[in-house]
Amino acid sequence: MPAPTHVPHTTIQRLPVYLRCLLQAQAARVRVISSGDIAEMCGTNPAQVRKDLSYLGELGTRGIGYDVDDLVGHISEVLGITERRKVALVGFGKLGAALYGYSGFAERGFEFVAIVDVDPAKVGTQTDGITIRHLDDACEVVRASGAEIAIISTPADGAQAAADVVVEAGVKAILNLAPVRLVVPPDVAVRQVCLSTDLQILSFYLAQHDGGER
Amino acid sequence: MPAPTHVPHTTIQRLPVYLRCLLQAQAARVRVISSGDIAEMCGTNPAQVRKDLSYLGELGTRGIGYDVDDLVGHISEVLGITERRKVALVGFGKLGAALYGYSGFAERGFEFVAIVDVDPAKVGTQTDGITIRHLDDACEVVRASGAEIAIISTPADGAQAAADVVVEAGVKAILNLAPVRLVVPPDVAVRQVCLSTDLQILSFYLAQHDGGER
Repeated sequence: MPAPTHVPHTTIQRLPVYLRCLLQAQAARVRVISSGDIAEMCGTNPAQVRKDLSYLGELGTRGIGYDVDDLVGHISEVLGITERRKVALVGFGKLGAALYGYSGFAERGFEFVAIVDVDPAKVGTQTDGITIRHLDDACEVVRASGAEIAIISTPADGAQAAADVVVEAGVKAILNLAPVRLVVPPDVAVRQVCLSTDLQILSFYLAQHDGGER
Repeated sequence: MPAPTHVPHTTIQRLPVYLRCLLQAQAARVRVISSGDIAEMCGTNPAQVRKDLSYLGELGTRGIGYDVDDLVGHISEVLGITERRKVALVGFGKLGAALYGYSGFAERGFEFVAIVDVDPAKVGTQTDGITIRHLDDACEVVRASGAEIAIISTPADGAQAAADVVVEAGVKAILNLAPVRLVVPPDVAVRQVCLSTDLQILSFYLAQHDGGER
């Protein structure tokens, strides 16, 4: 199935959340699930769930609900995660190593195929069968690995150089954990994760508490 | 200054991004910056910047721009980060340890004051002067530490129990890195970080590439 192009960006953001809830339901041997149940699990409302899922086609039976297996399959197809996706990891410091060791990626079909760093003490060593390679060789290494996604977990001042190299290697999707905005060509998708930003946003809500205004 | 309560949630989300750019400008000894410059650094448009900053008061001079130091001060005040915020870390696995070692938090005024885990091999050991304590003692420990924010980096199946304990200890803000939705009282703010979700969203854009539709 080609991915529908008419699915709104906001819906795309919610589909992985629905999928996570549906996989939990599947694990609990739930066969059929209502939009209300999904909404409750995901912290949204049933109308939103029905609207979002309507973009995927004519799914579900009015008054009964959605077949869980069916819905998992549809969302996975739309998200393009029925096939495994190869991932290059650039930056193998503490955070990079933690991400590499996280089993949740593999469970969701993401497979590390290349690791890049600049630390001479790390370059050339193996970790779980993957040899860590130097950034200078990264373009060639990443291209040969077939990676479609790069996770950048370098320090801030190395992130743009890392992005330039993986883009040159043909990567079209970047998950950036370095606290800096990347400049990439328009056909490359970037997701920025910045935990300091999240803490600052939480801090705002605490400041409201402090003022007794919430 | 009490935090303004009328600042829209969407603006709050962008303020930390502006702040990051302004700190970069400050480091480069830029004194005055235009909304256009900020917009370019942050990947948005000047009108959006001006509108967002207008919620902070009458700042900037038409045709000249904003005083960088002044703006850094105002945004920091609104975000409640002029004071240091104490943070409890629950879950000291690979990811937790990586977060604990990340200097970016301290640079932005966030200080770890308590570490909690359930692993008997870790409980009782010290790391940089903080003794890792067991989840069973966490309510008391977190309360005594004065932590206002908790970062939860446990496995998915331990996250809700961790949240319950820190909420009982009086924490009003949680950054959740476990891939599960937390149920908390309405006066507790939660930010959910799920890197698998980010990868799945990127995967959608790759699927569009695959279909040659983008």
